[in-house]
Formats: sequence, structure tokens, C-alpha cells
Amino acid sequence: MYDSIIIGMGPAGISCATYLKRYGLNVLVIGKDLGALELAKEIENFYGMGKISGHDLALKGIKEAMSLGINICHDEVINIDYLANGFNILTKKNNYDAKTIVLATGKVRNGFTLAKNFEGKGVSYCATCDGFFYRKKEIAIIGYNSYMLHELNVLLPLVKKITVFTNNNELEVELPANVEVVKDKITSFKGNDMLEQIICGDKTYNVEGCFIALGSQNAFTLAKHLGLDIKNNNLVVNDNYMTNIPGIFACGDVIGGMLQVAKAVSDGAICANNLNNYIRELKK
Amino acid sequence: MYDSIIIGMGPAGISCATYLKRYGLNVLVIGKDLGALELAKEIENFYGMGKISGHDLALKGIKEAMSLGINICHDEVINIDYLANGFNILTKKNNYDAKTIVLATGKVRNGFTLAKNFEGKGVSYCATCDGFFYRKKEIAIIGYNSYMLHELNVLLPLVKKITVFTNNNELEVELPANVEVVKDKITSFKGNDMLEQIICGDKTYNVEGCFIALGSQNAFTLAKHLGLDIKNNNLVVNDNYMTNIPGIFACGDVIGGMLQVAKAVSDGAICANNLNNYIRELKK
Repeated sequence: MYDSIIIGMGPAGISCATYLKRYGLNVLVIGKDLGALELAKEIENFYGMGKISGHDLALKGIKEAMSLGINICHDEVINIDYLANGFNILTKKNNYDAKTIVLATGKVRNGFTLAKNFEGKGVSYCATCDGFFYRKKEIAIIGYNSYMLHELNVLLPLVKKITVFTNNNELEVELPANVEVVKDKITSFKGNDMLEQIICGDKTYNVEGCFIALGSQNAFTLAKHLGLDIKNNNLVVNDNYMTNIPGIFACGDVIGGMLQVAKAVSDGAICANNLNNYIRELKK
Repeated sequence: MYDSIIIGMGPAGISCATYLKRYGLNVLVIGKDLGALELAKEIENFYGMGKISGHDLALKGIKEAMSLGINICHDEVINIDYLANGFNILTKKNNYDAKTIVLATGKVRNGFTLAKNFEGKGVSYCATCDGFFYRKKEIAIIGYNSYMLHELNVLLPLVKKITVFTNNNELEVELPANVEVVKDKITSFKGNDMLEQIICGDKTYNVEGCFIALGSQNAFTLAKHLGLDIKNNNLVVNDNYMTNIPGIFACGDVIGGMLQVAKAVSDGAICANNLNNYIRELKK
């Protein structure tokens, strides 16, 4: 069991992992891409770094962390479950247990914009949390990959019928035999107060609910799964960089403030310091 | 008149200056040495930097800031005075006006430890602030350089007699004719409640007060001069990194927290962001 698994391999995640490693903790970083840094063509306001592209800086950070002996997996988180003494993290390639989690996933993005008006009114982002409310109903799930399949398998035993909407994405997984697939692009959601219909161009599908598991888990969907507080599109943390769930920390852009490498790196360091204290208390 | 003068050329000061420059402000950095970084033999937990000595990192930061067109003076602050619309900064080599000041001087050190028990009881760190209380008295001033001379010149018109104690340092400045000098090392301060005697080995000097202007202005003495709040040996700042005096900001080790490059660099960036907003409001 890892002392901590850090989700995200940008400046916040790598900085946090580096400090945790230095504190003698057993850590793993899981990252799916280079995040916002990938978009920064040139950075020249990060102390001591001169001019560097975001891409190169991100790779430099990862490479140096690996040279310090930090394990970094290029992988994607599909689900996080609570254990009695920590968390289980299911990824595309593997399965890990950890006493603590650090969410350093980058800026919280919105959910599926088209469905915004029906969030909590028939639209959900977490099968484990909300599946029960749709027992014996005919529902939809939007997605196309292993993250969607995980959510689908949670829902299948509960619901009467479930249709997969790939929203024009290539289906990446094999579905159970009894599941229908709609491959068209979704154009709108309709309903009086509660969601009633999913519209794909000139086709209309009646539904009693819809789960969104599109693309990959991100800060928004992870927060929904874990029951984390979100405010103004930022994960809410206390002075110790811990979320409302004990053992789940967050740092970097995901908690808001200045969206700068400098701030993310500092967040990572301070978060690590507090997480180390938390782990030491657990071990007492 | 500068928009801002940053005192300190370590990670916090340079990061702050870099951001201010990017915001289009007219800034100057004044630094007297490389501060705490000079003592760090090897740093390997600052994101993206690999292994580097504190000395090399500090020089790298300064060099890169200069390449962005930031003015950096290797100089020493002797005094800061309030102006109607800002501040006047007197240095060893020059004299500057600025609308705002950023104190990025590194960790607040204690005052003169030997005199600790008599602070506010006959021992003062600011001639401008407290000189008036020693009118027509026979007092001492401890120091040996231009910073001491500045304080001495403030006190001379007020007091009856003043003796310079160099505390075994080489006197670096020429003193007015009527000033006596004691070159011995100070061994203790004595008095019942209020300071009464300065002891140098087997010699005893009766005094009615003592000003300390030893070495160079540092965070502690600057804070005393400017009337800044100090708590637990840290300058007190609000969420905007501003001290209790409008227009005086602080960032890095001087405000406490984790004494790490990462945190100092982030402080500098966030402080700059808030200072920029402050300046823009002034210009309205």
C-alpha cells in the first residue's frame, strides 16, 4: 500500500511527489498527459528557468523526479473507491491501494456543457453515488472507453435498460450483449424540469436519466465520485491543502488561485509537508 | 519615481520583479547579498531545476531577470522614509523614490541578542522612531558603517552626548568631531528594568539609552523603522501580501511559512499580482 498516490504529473504533482519522497514516504505518481503546460508555448517568468516551452518544462520535471527514484506511471484513473484504511485507485492498466491521495489534476473543467441544465435533475457524473436512484429505469450513459465501461458495469445490475451514447466517438471497449449503442453526436438535452429526452440531430431518445462518463476522469468527475466540495470551479481545501474528505489532498490549479507554474510548484511542496504530518499521525 | 522597489534579490524578490515587469511596471531590485541560498550546498527539490547549488541558482535567477530588462542594483539599503505619495529609499550608493516597496529580504533575524532584555526599555532599533525620547540624554549607538552613521546623524541634534560602540568591528565611516568611539567587544547590558550600563569586559559605561545599527539593515531593523507588525519573527501580511502599512508588501521567507525556494518564488508571483492591482487602483 502506497503512503500516497499523486494524480497528475504537472508541476504541482511532481513537486509534491519530490517532497514526499524526501520525507521518506512511499509514493506513486499517475498522470495521463502534460495538462495545461502542454499549451504554454513559451514560459519565461518561472524563477531560474530562463525561456522554456511548457512541454519541455513538464518533461524536465518528470525526468528529474524519476532520477530521484520516484515512480511515475503514464496511466489513466478510471475509478477511486474508499477502503477502510485508505483508497483503491483503479486505472486503465492497473490497480493500486494508497493511504492518501493528492489530486493535482489541473484546473477543474466544467462537466458536459450540453447537459449543464439537468445536473442533479436526471444527469449524473457518478454511477456509484447515484446509480441507486435509477433502479428499474431506462437510462443513458455517455462515453466510449474503459471509464465509461466501469460506470456501465456499476449501473447494469440496477437499471431496466441502458443505452450507450458515444457522442460520435469511436467505441474503445467491448460492451455486454444486452446494451444498445447510439453513435450519433448529441445535439441537446430536453425535459420539463427533469431530463426526458436526448436529441441527436433529427432523432429523439426518451430517457429517465443519463450518466456522463465521457473522455477520462478529470478533477470535476473525480470530485463528483469522491464527494469533494467544489466552489467557483475549484476544489475546496483547508489550510493544510486537505479536501473535505480526510486523506484526500489537492494542490495546483485544481484548487484555484493564480494559474502559474510558480504557484503550483509551491502548492505541491506545502501540500507534501502537510500530508507528511498527516501520515505520521496515522502511524502513531 | 519607480512603481515599485524590491528589496532582496533572492527567489522571492526576483520572481516578484519578473512578474511586475511583465505587468508593465517600472521596477528596481536592490540586493546586498544572495541571502539564505548562499548556504544551500545542493538543492534538488525545486521543480524542473535538477541538482544545483543555492549560489548558482541565485545567480541564475538574477542573470535571467536582467536579461528580461529588470534593473538590479547590488547595493545596501540604509534608510527608508515616507513620502506623501510613496517612499524614499536611501542606499549606500544612491537614493530612490518608489510608489511601493516589496520586502523580500529573507528570514527575519533577531535583533542584537545581548540587548534583547532591554528592547523598548532603553534599547531601540530606529533613530527616526525613538530619537525624540532620548533628548538631552547621554546615549550609545552600536555600529560601524554608513547605516550607523545615518542613525547617528538623526540622533546628534537631539541628544546631549552620544558614544559609538563598534563592538570590535572596523569603523568604516568618518565620524563627526564631537563623537567618542569605544572599539571593545560588548559583553553585556545591565540595568534595573531600564538599561543603565553597557559592559565591555572589565569596563563599564553608563548610558541612558542605546541605539543598535549594527551590520546592515535587515528585515528586523527595516520593520522597526517602518512600523511594520512582526509576529513569531515573521512580517505580518494580509491575503494580498501587504503589510500593515499601505504600499509596503512582503514575500518569501520574511513572511514565514515553509522556508523553501518553491514557496518564495510563488510568494513573489502572487505578491506581484496583488501589487499590480494596488498600483492600478492608485493610477485611477
